[in-house]
Amino acid sequence: MAKAVVGKVAGAGAVPDLRASPNSYRYFDKVNRLVSNEVKVVFTPSGRRGNFPRGTPLLHAARVLGVDIDSVCGGRGLCGRCQILCTEGSFPKHQVVSEVSHLSPFTETERRYNQRKKPLAIGRRLSCHTLLEGDVVIDVPADSQVHRQVVRKDAEHRDIKLDPATRLYYVEVEEADMHNPKGDLQRLLEALQRDWQLLNITCDTHILTQLQAVLREGKWSVTVAIYMQGKITAIWPGFKDQALGVAVDVGSTTVAAHLCDLRTGDVLATASMMNPQIRFGEDLMSRVSYVMMHPQGVVEMTAAIRESINQLIAEASAQINSTPADVLELVLVANPIMHHLFLGISPLELGGAPFALATDSSLDLSAAELELSLHPGARVYVLPCIAGHVGADTAGVILSEEPQVASEMTLLVDVGTNAEIVLGNNQRLMACSSPTGPAFEGAQISCGQRAAAGAIERVEINPETLEPRFKVIGCELWSDAPDFSDKTEAVGITGICGSGIIDVVAEMFLAGIITVDGVIDGDLMEKTPRVISNDRTWSYRLHSGITDIVITQNDVRQIQLAKAALYAGVKLLMDKMGIISIDRIRLAGAFGSHIDVKHAMVLGLIPDCDLAKVSSAGNAAGTGARIALLNAASRTNIETIVRGIEKIETAVEEKFQQYFVEAMAFPNKTDEFPHLFEVVARPISRIISGSAGDSGKSRRRRRRI
Amino acid sequence: MAKAVVGKVAGAGAVPDLRASPNSYRYFDKVNRLVSNEVKVVFTPSGRRGNFPRGTPLLHAARVLGVDIDSVCGGRGLCGRCQILCTEGSFPKHQVVSEVSHLSPFTETERRYNQRKKPLAIGRRLSCHTLLEGDVVIDVPADSQVHRQVVRKDAEHRDIKLDPATRLYYVEVEEADMHNPKGDLQRLLEALQRDWQLLNITCDTHILTQLQAVLREGKWSVTVAIYMQGKITAIWPGFKDQALGVAVDVGSTTVAAHLCDLRTGDVLATASMMNPQIRFGEDLMSRVSYVMMHPQGVVEMTAAIRESINQLIAEASAQINSTPADVLELVLVANPIMHHLFLGISPLELGGAPFALATDSSLDLSAAELELSLHPGARVYVLPCIAGHVGADTAGVILSEEPQVASEMTLLVDVGTNAEIVLGNNQRLMACSSPTGPAFEGAQISCGQRAAAGAIERVEINPETLEPRFKVIGCELWSDAPDFSDKTEAVGITGICGSGIIDVVAEMFLAGIITVDGVIDGDLMEKTPRVISNDRTWSYRLHSGITDIVITQNDVRQIQLAKAALYAGVKLLMDKMGIISIDRIRLAGAFGSHIDVKHAMVLGLIPDCDLAKVSSAGNAAGTGARIALLNAASRTNIETIVRGIEKIETAVEEKFQQYFVEAMAFPNKTDEFPHLFEVVARPISRIISGSAGDSGKSRRRRRRI
Repeated sequence: MAKAVVGKVAGAGAVPDLRASPNSYRYFDKVNRLVSNEVKVVFTPSGRRGNFPRGTPLLHAARVLGVDIDSVCGGRGLCGRCQILCTEGSFPKHQVVSEVSHLSPFTETERRYNQRKKPLAIGRRLSCHTLLEGDVVIDVPADSQVHRQVVRKDAEHRDIKLDPATRLYYVEVEEADMHNPKGDLQRLLEALQRDWQLLNITCDTHILTQLQAVLREGKWSVTVAIYMQGKITAIWPGFKDQALGVAVDVGSTTVAAHLCDLRTGDVLATASMMNPQIRFGEDLMSRVSYVMMHPQGVVEMTAAIRESINQLIAEASAQINSTPADVLELVLVANPIMHHLFLGISPLELGGAPFALATDSSLDLSAAELELSLHPGARVYVLPCIAGHVGADTAGVILSEEPQVASEMTLLVDVGTNAEIVLGNNQRLMACSSPTGPAFEGAQISCGQRAAAGAIERVEINPETLEPRFKVIGCELWSDAPDFSDKTEAVGITGICGSGIIDVVAEMFLAGIITVDGVIDGDLMEKTPRVISNDRTWSYRLHSGITDIVITQNDVRQIQLAKAALYAGVKLLMDKMGIISIDRIRLAGAFGSHIDVKHAMVLGLIPDCDLAKVSSAGNAAGTGARIALLNAASRTNIETIVRGIEKIETAVEEKFQQYFVEAMAFPNKTDEFPHLFEVVARPISRIISGSAGDSGKSRRRRRRI
Repeated sequence: MAKAVVGKVAGAGAVPDLRASPNSYRYFDKVNRLVSNEVKVVFTPSGRRGNFPRGTPLLHAARVLGVDIDSVCGGRGLCGRCQILCTEGSFPKHQVVSEVSHLSPFTETERRYNQRKKPLAIGRRLSCHTLLEGDVVIDVPADSQVHRQVVRKDAEHRDIKLDPATRLYYVEVEEADMHNPKGDLQRLLEALQRDWQLLNITCDTHILTQLQAVLREGKWSVTVAIYMQGKITAIWPGFKDQALGVAVDVGSTTVAAHLCDLRTGDVLATASMMNPQIRFGEDLMSRVSYVMMHPQGVVEMTAAIRESINQLIAEASAQINSTPADVLELVLVANPIMHHLFLGISPLELGGAPFALATDSSLDLSAAELELSLHPGARVYVLPCIAGHVGADTAGVILSEEPQVASEMTLLVDVGTNAEIVLGNNQRLMACSSPTGPAFEGAQISCGQRAAAGAIERVEINPETLEPRFKVIGCELWSDAPDFSDKTEAVGITGICGSGIIDVVAEMFLAGIITVDGVIDGDLMEKTPRVISNDRTWSYRLHSGITDIVITQNDVRQIQLAKAALYAGVKLLMDKMGIISIDRIRLAGAFGSHIDVKHAMVLGLIPDCDLAKVSSAGNAAGTGARIALLNAASRTNIETIVRGIEKIETAVEEKFQQYFVEAMAFPNKTDEFPHLFEVVARPISRIISGSAGDSGKSRRRRRRI
């Protein structure tokens, strides 16, 4: 009789086809096991199963079968990560009757774990200290899996598979011995190879300087953090089971840090602040100008951005009673200029053609060399840039949004001073940027302001009366609610922010106050006192108060210029892609989160699309940074994707200018918006012949466009 | 007719066997070449040859054939490293009639090189700008070979094959272009791949911060230094052709730096100084004590040693009008304690059993993290340590002395406060250290002093009269020369150094002043006033002057203890090796350079051996550092050798004590010294029964031992 192979893998994907002779196989299997004193174990949910000698530790059986089960302490009953549950019952499919009594009794080690650490839930065992005494079906709960899923709240996205670049390993190291002279490091490396099969491990110098003291303090038991299964980046005496990482998103305006538990993937704390570089210039180009004017500008600005990151991490770690020295990894996304400044690279070349990046690769650096006050061995991963104006932040958006996995043609737009535009699907990806300017952020708008308390963020205009109502940030009520004045007294009504300006211009257009060409119709002065004359143009008074909020002809022009630039960029990519419609639009970033997508489409800021398929992607860049932090494989993934992206430089594309001019009209001079006008009534528009300033003498007619 | 393969390699080691039909082959070859318009080129000294189309550049032909020929500029006529000579004449063996006229005429580029750089020697051409126009035999002179030999003056050693870890590459990079957006780094890497077939090159952050400015300053032509064919460590605009490296030897007493040209292997400058750690303690153990007593001791001592290295490199580079910023690589050897302190590791564990090293591996570090003021991208290579008391300096000695290549059994001894001992041949290598103490350095000797002006370094004693004569450092005369007093007046006669103490004790023994047991014979007071009584022992007065130089009984005891420790270590290794005689002894270090080997053997400091086979290895540790600097492969080599060495810890070997006791006698209580006593008369010895202090009552007899 053939002897069964002990622990042979017969799990999912490797199940022998026994349908032809199930009974004979089962018979042999049973006899085999009786003769060889073996028992059968089936692991769920993986379905992996095998036979093992009676008395085999469950964790060992799981390892042999390749079952995904966690352990930091290497089976010493310290970490509690290898918990399992025995599923009782009869499983005819596996020919197994599983009972809790088929496992060895609860051990002293488990009792100790129960007391000192978190109590084990009912039925839970430490698989490292549980022996197989009979046939069992063992469930590995999600929290015991190494590669568990980090659940994303957003239903649109796949969960993140947890597989961090930095992992902890507990080892008991052979004591130094004169009879066998070798270095303490070599003894540690031997233990890592013996217990964890880790080979060719190197270490930082700072590990060397503390190694001997730590080994002795921990009585030759230590926990090490290993980066990318290759380099020891941290060491602690004894057992340690929490490793922290931080995902950082450096925007032009805001810097945010999300402190994560690398073991669970949970965001433990978040901190954000205004980008300190605002003192060197509100927008990116003025920061580049600062560098041009000040020889020390790069040094100052690099120090400022690094300092702000240090401050955020100090804040976030204080929230969980930890310190920055516990942070072992940082992943960063940023636009190209912030990316360069963070690295200490002058952004000068990015300020003018040919907009050359110093590097477009991802970067794997030490936190120490970047003057970040994390753990001395902490690593920094910076996502790759795509092109001179399309940065690591856009790579983060792609990592989060995954346009490359579906067949539907997806448009990703991240609007800031520049709009970064990505278009594609699982066949092809393209990217470009377009110089929208800061109008969408409320700058260059007469009453514009940042999105802060007191800013008008929503506007509706009655097309009959031309009377508006609006909401301000900091108050839930519409302006026509009775309590509105009382409720807004504290915050005031101070200006209009990005989403408010989109709303008001779109509503003005829908109400016929502005024409398809973007001219405020002075004739309406006759109909409403809200249209007022300024020299040769007209304005619309949205609100009268301590501050009058007025939309001027120039404000409309600024929005036209910004949205035309964005649309022309999108159009260019569609052209290159050879498509005339888009299946799905995702708007990333703060602006994308707050604008009304219907109004955006009414203005022709984004191309026509089924409105149900247009949505906000939230802080997709930051999410991308978190994915790269929690899943090492995603780094290689995004690096490969970025290399494959076709980069389009709008500045050298002949058609850009034409598309830009066509896109000045609302929503567009040439493109139909069939999906939009299925759900939105076409505005009553006044076509005005002659120039805007010449309206007095012009012939007017009203028509539905 | 078969078409000849263009440029097919048919050089040394790959010559087809044509002896059977030489004429037919030659006929075909000639016809082939006529038909295909090809010419033949033979390179000497490699013997590689092949056929190429008329007009092929010589450098290209050499590359195709794998001829070792240098180039930094990649064939642009800038570096002048690819110079060749055409050998004129008829070479029937190759069927070639070689003429200078078979090469294309002297070009404008060569004329420019001639004017701007060094003039080309007569007949020399730049092979990158010389085309093949007919059959030629081309000689590649040694200075045009990449892997040229660095000649070692010492006839005992093989030359060093030049193959540095850091090499320079000149490239012309594609200009940044909006139509093809990519990072400047990526463009540089593409150029390195295109021109130099270098793949997977990474770069330091400091390269990124200056890359864009350097590329533009050099008008897109740059020279980069690449470390281990993997990492860009330096970048300069335009063409640069000198790379410097430094070999550093940190001894307990002295620190020395040898500044080398990585291209030629020449030592350009040398600087040395007292080890600044002497202020923390004269010997290694007192420096360890300093660390024990002072919590900040490690930091202070690390800073001191790094600062002294910085100072030496500044001095050495100033000698050649260069700066430390030109130094791209540093290789360091040191004993374990200095090794640890250099790295910032506490030497505490090395101060007591089990003498655990933090690491015994070689180290590849950045100079910046070690606070060395070299080029910001400079690399540091530290040779591996062998055991707790056998350091990277001994690895350097092995690299220089190569005991592993010959079949003769070689003993390498490096004497300091500890003696490092290596024994072996091409079959097996062993190492240990033995605690000789500082007696050999003149410490713990009543009139001992360091080897400096005024120290007695040579002594002879007339066995009949028992009168000595001696020499002092700083004067060429023996003390019995008439002018001696005048000539030594300036330096004085201040003490006795290591080689002097070996000489005087050996001569006292040979003259019968001390017995085989090391007792100064008080009876000789009757014969000479130089033997004087001190309480219960006697001394020998070597010199009377401002300072009396006297050898006391305790001085002899110190030498006995030191030499017994050394000999016991050697004996232990011989035992382990299973041998009773040694073929060859090499004494490394300053002490080894100065002692009289015959006297050392008379004392039984080293085992019996053919005296012609005992010699000084000079500063072998420093030479080892230089080899590792100039030949990257030697690093892997010494790492492998060190792993294979059997490390013996004398402290745990039972027999050590016995061998030590036996070795207290001169030359040894049990071991015969047959080779020695073939050339040296056995001393007249007085065996004294009873203790040394009991001589008055003891019975004495004289015999030849």
